[in-house]
Amino acid sequence: MWDNLETVPDFSPGSVIKIKGRVQLYRNRVQLSVMQLRIARAEEASPADFLPRSARDPEEMFTELRQIIASIADTHLRGLLETVFGDAAIAAKFKRAPAAKSMHHAFCGGLLEHVLSLCGLCQLAAAHYKTIRRDLLMTGAILHDIGKIEELGYQASFFYTNEGQLIGHLVGGVEIVREKLRGLPGFPEEYRLLVEHMILSHHGHLEFGSPKEPLFPEALMLHYLDDLDSKMEAMRATIAASPDQEWTARSPALERSLLNLDYFLKAVKV
Amino acid sequence: MWDNLETVPDFSPGSVIKIKGRVQLYRNRVQLSVMQLRIARAEEASPADFLPRSARDPEEMFTELRQIIASIADTHLRGLLETVFGDAAIAAKFKRAPAAKSMHHAFCGGLLEHVLSLCGLCQLAAAHYKTIRRDLLMTGAILHDIGKIEELGYQASFFYTNEGQLIGHLVGGVEIVREKLRGLPGFPEEYRLLVEHMILSHHGHLEFGSPKEPLFPEALMLHYLDDLDSKMEAMRATIAASPDQEWTARSPALERSLLNLDYFLKAVKV
Amino acid sequence: MWDNLETVPDFSPGSVIKIKGRVQLYRNRVQLSVMQLRIARAEEASPADFLPRSARDPEEMFTELRQIIASIADTHLRGLLETVFGDAAIAAKFKRAPAAKSMHHAFCGGLLEHVLSLCGLCQLAAAHYKTIRRDLLMTGAILHDIGKIEELGYQASFFYTNEGQLIGHLVGGVEIVREKLRGLPGFPEEYRLLVEHMILSHHGHLEFGSPKEPLFPEALMLHYLDDLDSKMEAMRATIAASPDQEWTARSPALERSLLNLDYFLKAVKV
Amino acid sequence: MWDNLETVPDFSPGSVIKIKGRVQLYRNRVQLSVMQLRIARAEEASPADFLPRSARDPEEMFTELRQIIASIADTHLRGLLETVFGDAAIAAKFKRAPAAKSMHHAFCGGLLEHVLSLCGLCQLAAAHYKTIRRDLLMTGAILHDIGKIEELGYQASFFYTNEGQLIGHLVGGVEIVREKLRGLPGFPEEYRLLVEHMILSHHGHLEFGSPKEPLFPEALMLHYLDDLDSKMEAMRATIAASPDQEWTARSPALERSLLNLDYFLKAVKV
Amino acid sequence: MWDNLETVPDFSPGSVIKIKGRVQLYRNRVQLSVMQLRIARAEEASPADFLPRSARDPEEMFTELRQIIASIADTHLRGLLETVFGDAAIAAKFKRAPAAKSMHHAFCGGLLEHVLSLCGLCQLAAAHYKTIRRDLLMTGAILHDIGKIEELGYQASFFYTNEGQLIGHLVGGVEIVREKLRGLPGFPEEYRLLVEHMILSHHGHLEFGSPKEPLFPEALMLHYLDDLDSKMEAMRATIAASPDQEWTARSPALERSLLNLDYFLKAVKV
Amino acid sequence: MWDNLETVPDFSPGSVIKIKGRVQLYRNRVQLSVMQLRIARAEEASPADFLPRSARDPEEMFTELRQIIASIADTHLRGLLETVFGDAAIAAKFKRAPAAKSMHHAFCGGLLEHVLSLCGLCQLAAAHYKTIRRDLLMTGAILHDIGKIEELGYQASFFYTNEGQLIGHLVGGVEIVREKLRGLPGFPEEYRLLVEHMILSHHGHLEFGSPKEPLFPEALMLHYLDDLDSKMEAMRATIAASPDQEWTARSPALERSLLNLDYFLKAVKV
Repeated sequence: MWDNLETVPDFSPGSVIKIKGRVQLYRNRVQLSVMQLRIARAEEASPADFLPRSARDPEEMFTELRQIIASIADTHLRGLLETVFGDAAIAAKFKRAPAAKSMHHAFCGGLLEHVLSLCGLCQLAAAHYKTIRRDLLMTGAILHDIGKIEELGYQASFFYTNEGQLIGHLVGGVEIVREKLRGLPGFPEEYRLLVEHMILSHHGHLEFGSPKEPLFPEALMLHYLDDLDSKMEAMRATIAASPDQEWTARSPALERSLLNLDYFLKAVKV
Repeated sequence: MWDNLETVPDFSPGSVIKIKGRVQLYRNRVQLSVMQLRIARAEEASPADFLPRSARDPEEMFTELRQIIASIADTHLRGLLETVFGDAAIAAKFKRAPAAKSMHHAFCGGLLEHVLSLCGLCQLAAAHYKTIRRDLLMTGAILHDIGKIEELGYQASFFYTNEGQLIGHLVGGVEIVREKLRGLPGFPEEYRLLVEHMILSHHGHLEFGSPKEPLFPEALMLHYLDDLDSKMEAMRATIAASPDQEWTARSPALERSLLNLDYFLKAVKV
Repeated sequence: MWDNLETVPDFSPGSVIKIKGRVQLYRNRVQLSVMQLRIARAEEASPADFLPRSARDPEEMFTELRQIIASIADTHLRGLLETVFGDAAIAAKFKRAPAAKSMHHAFCGGLLEHVLSLCGLCQLAAAHYKTIRRDLLMTGAILHDIGKIEELGYQASFFYTNEGQLIGHLVGGVEIVREKLRGLPGFPEEYRLLVEHMILSHHGHLEFGSPKEPLFPEALMLHYLDDLDSKMEAMRATIAASPDQEWTARSPALERSLLNLDYFLKAVKV
Repeated sequence: MWDNLETVPDFSPGSVIKIKGRVQLYRNRVQLSVMQLRIARAEEASPADFLPRSARDPEEMFTELRQIIASIADTHLRGLLETVFGDAAIAAKFKRAPAAKSMHHAFCGGLLEHVLSLCGLCQLAAAHYKTIRRDLLMTGAILHDIGKIEELGYQASFFYTNEGQLIGHLVGGVEIVREKLRGLPGFPEEYRLLVEHMILSHHGHLEFGSPKEPLFPEALMLHYLDDLDSKMEAMRATIAASPDQEWTARSPALERSLLNLDYFLKAVKV
Repeated sequence: MWDNLETVPDFSPGSVIKIKGRVQLYRNRVQLSVMQLRIARAEEASPADFLPRSARDPEEMFTELRQIIASIADTHLRGLLETVFGDAAIAAKFKRAPAAKSMHHAFCGGLLEHVLSLCGLCQLAAAHYKTIRRDLLMTGAILHDIGKIEELGYQASFFYTNEGQLIGHLVGGVEIVREKLRGLPGFPEEYRLLVEHMILSHHGHLEFGSPKEPLFPEALMLHYLDDLDSKMEAMRATIAASPDQEWTARSPALERSLLNLDYFLKAVKV
Repeated sequence: MWDNLETVPDFSPGSVIKIKGRVQLYRNRVQLSVMQLRIARAEEASPADFLPRSARDPEEMFTELRQIIASIADTHLRGLLETVFGDAAIAAKFKRAPAAKSMHHAFCGGLLEHVLSLCGLCQLAAAHYKTIRRDLLMTGAILHDIGKIEELGYQASFFYTNEGQLIGHLVGGVEIVREKLRGLPGFPEEYRLLVEHMILSHHGHLEFGSPKEPLFPEALMLHYLDDLDSKMEAMRATIAASPDQEWTARSPALERSLLNLDYFLKAVKV
């Protein structure tokens, strides 16, 4: 309701606006009557305050990640992971990054939440299949999306950086690994190829942006479990957004409506 | 080496032949000189003796399956499973069936081996995702391929039955469930829809033969873990068939050669 | 024009509203000035009164279907059809169902209208190709969409039922047939496979939702003629909706605009 | 069995060879012992004598086509058809051409056989759908493959001509029509567009080589019925080639094996 | 701002309207207050005056085209081109036609501008690859879109004609060539096939509307360079429409946003 | 003809064999009678002697490449190129590498030959489109396939290295550039993104293995001209391999037979 304002200033997208006004009920709907408005000063609020956030504390999640890294027995792979996450700049970005712009875990801390969930899954699957090299799989799980710390920016909302649009998080992740390997001269060349391949192939198919398809069991498993974890979270969020309906709104990530089992099964006596 | 036989009788494919002959070395290769041959009598051998078999004992695997069924708390779902596998004819076929004609677990007992592995995975994944209804997922895992007991025949090799070619194991599985539900009048209609949907949608996509895509989390998870378990076994078998090579022969199921990590990593000191 | 109403009540979608008002001309357009409005009482009107309907009388169409059934010489196939359509609950639903939610024959009685048209086509095609088994083809035509009586619901508009979304009309149709076959013990197993296959394969390709592709001539012909009849009706409806234009509005079902030949050829002297 | 020939002359593909030899039984198989062989002289035999042929007499089929043309009431359309088939060179080629190189009706006279069958189908379908312009549809059916008289050559086997490879029978057919229209100055421009569009669009989809998709009902129907007739003939030929088997050899045209109903149903008592 | 008009007359789309009014600033935006309006008389303005136009003079561009034609040494090919463009009706349409409805060069004179640019590219590429027949390639470049003079109409905006929708510019272009060849009896049949094939195959793939794929080097090169020139112009126009942004609006023709290098590189010191 | 050898030793693929024998004519065919054979000693011959080679001298081609680099005015881009090709190890590999395993330029020196041809094309196209940044495009052309020096190995034939299979030449090329940039601290970050993007996107589409599609004009042009040059060479080689036929053997790279214009046009008088 702008009627009593002579001129509305032009705001750039992403500005935080300070409003003085009155909230009223009008024809059964809430209505805001604006009396004054101006751009908020930096000390009053920052756009990032309005970004969605993980329900979990990032520091606590990061501690959990460090514990997973500590559990890796192979000294080469653990050494690589400690070097990557011991870099304070990487750690700071990793705690804050979303896992995607909109498809799944699209909130601050979402990348860490996704990686921890995936590590849990991989841990279980590695125990299930005896021939899986657990340390290799866990290294792939921890590093597969490391490139996202440079791919996505966040001010008032999430967006792709120039690095994200032009290079992408697969190749960007390989770059981060290779940069760190420069300080680890004894790291076996074979391991480098396997870790880089897991990062590059984790989308599973060329048409999903992986320049290579998975070529050994740990790489294939990483692709499946990463995809599963993303889809499980997308399903969870879709259902949570339509709590009192039998069928949810259509999920753009999943390209379908979902059946809400809590609603559907409420009359069933177990 | 047929040279000293006047006439070679015509055998139909799948016959078992009894041969009397001599094995010799010729130019560094083994050579069989056939002296007499005839069709074996039924009491001497059956074609099924030559089919590949699971390394595990089918009775032992079936006992394991019954224990998993007993672990299901939901009385409706456990009741359905007990009815299905309590049918002696189904049990006999289920112990013997392969999981596929050629793509993965293509050996007698393969279906049971695949289902047990999938149940193990589902058990772990249900523990990992708190909102997953474990009993529903396990029921889907146990029943998803039940239609294969009618889809595949086996004499000298595996083949699709007429039922398999014309109807397929997805719809055939739904039929078996519905047939058994006739004797379980209190089974909730909602559960019937969910179980049937999990069977029909477990190939994940229309172009892979599922007439419906997974529409709730347990159905989606079943699709992913079933696909993962099939691919893991296909990878294992492909690598096992090329033990002393860096790259395996091309796998028709996976449409690629695989990197044999045992070979590739043999020079790496951990 | 709501201006003189203090509060507009919230109506749920699908409610029938009773309105008292005045119809006026304003700037060359018809305008309704609402004076009073409330939800209609059940005895005043039902939402289904507002659904579109076939131009043909459902009872008359059903009689025509019974005559087609009576024309089938094969006693097994005619017996199956008589059992299905002799079921009063099935008959009642069949007379009322639309053939689709929106793509073609999307009106009450549309399923019956489509089936009759398809039967007419099949009758002609069976006469044209001497080796076609006419009774088998007709049985497929009559039963191919029987599952739609459970797939689509209709209140104020058409929608997919839970059965429709989770199972679909192909598998649902097979279920209805199998249910009825339980009362027909002498029905040949071979016929059961053929009829079920025709129902399952009538969409023609996996990516259109058929879990099997047509594997014998009658099944392939059923697919072609069913698709043709649906598209002919979609074309007819699209052209009828744009009577005075050379090119119609874009048809979502056909994904193109159509040339209206009545308009295009009006200047041609034959 | 070439053993007693000192030198085997090189024959170019498609040569007719005259052989003098002896036919014997050897190990239950027929064996030809060649004693003399040379290239046959032109007056002895021509390669075309060995091409497969329609079971029907081409002159009789052509007479039937002329009768169909005579049944067209629209003077413009009938005039066009009479001009095309009144051209002796076109008529001679049309009587002899196959309908395809290998997919369906791949024998001399196959084009005529296919067109007559399609005309029969169109005749029936036009009677079934009241709004279909029968004369227009029949004209499309008669002319849709006219370009094949220049697309396929035949000496010892069928092959694509340069015209066929570089231009194709769709555009080639349009050319033949346009050439003939030059002598029919009163032919309505609207009709020309419709007839040419039916020829160009009869493959139904861009990826099947039609530069335009069907844009009015007669063009869509022509596509469906042409495709149906081709597939029916491919099915008939596939089944005829495997008479005593339940499942046929895989058909390259249909990309599947077929169920042979004569064999499958032989135990069913009607 | 229509507030002070009692009734707004209905205008058909594409009408030119004459308005008397006042232009004012209101809340920082330009606002037009309409006082009188009526349909413009034919002598006042024509809808075509409002179509976008090439920045280059059509006569000057046409002269350039004639010079390119004059540079062709092969007398047959030059003769064909002189006959086509010596036709005054074709020349008039060619000077005025756009190259596309919306994808690229969508302005009057756009076809000529695109053809001249493509000729320039082909000239260079023919010099680069020594085995390319330059005259044949240039002939293809000049004639490849000749059918667009009949495919697109223009009144108030560009639209597809009936000829364009039903036949298209590929087949339409072949027709124009064949019509002109009728007056050139000595033109080699081989050349006719090559020129027609280049026109028909220049979209490169069946799914892009070419009924044939390019089958010799000049035809393949024509396809690549035509596609490149269209895309370069689409990129140029997309970037020009978003001058002061790092990333452009999404281009429907290219299905992506583009990086504006002028903006992106403005801080780089070379 | 091995008849007079008692035992044939087993040779591993890629061995060079020294043979003593006699060449004779037998039934009009050349026949080699082998009398002695053994593995050749390293000083006698190496498998690489049998690899196909470019017709051009690699040193001369490399000198031409250095001249192109010297022509680049932009000091940053020229500095990068001089650093890459001033590396003696890279230069040695670059002179020897093929451009592909089998699709195009599959011979030693093929990579250099392809890059020089592409540079020539880009030079011309940059002159044609005034807004193209010539130095950026040339840098992309020179570096686009640099990763192939690690992707392909060659002993007796060409094969993919482990690096090639697991990482590929797109990401491998980015790595080489980034490694060299480490020694060029003043190189603008913007340029790094553009050069890396051109390398990653030069296959044009995700399904062809590029993890990013081209996002600015120079990247799109590089994709088109690289693809064109590869196809032109594939066409040239296909036609050269079937010199005396109107239609060539089917090219696996192009998935079609080609028309040989030299043959097709031999009767045409210009």
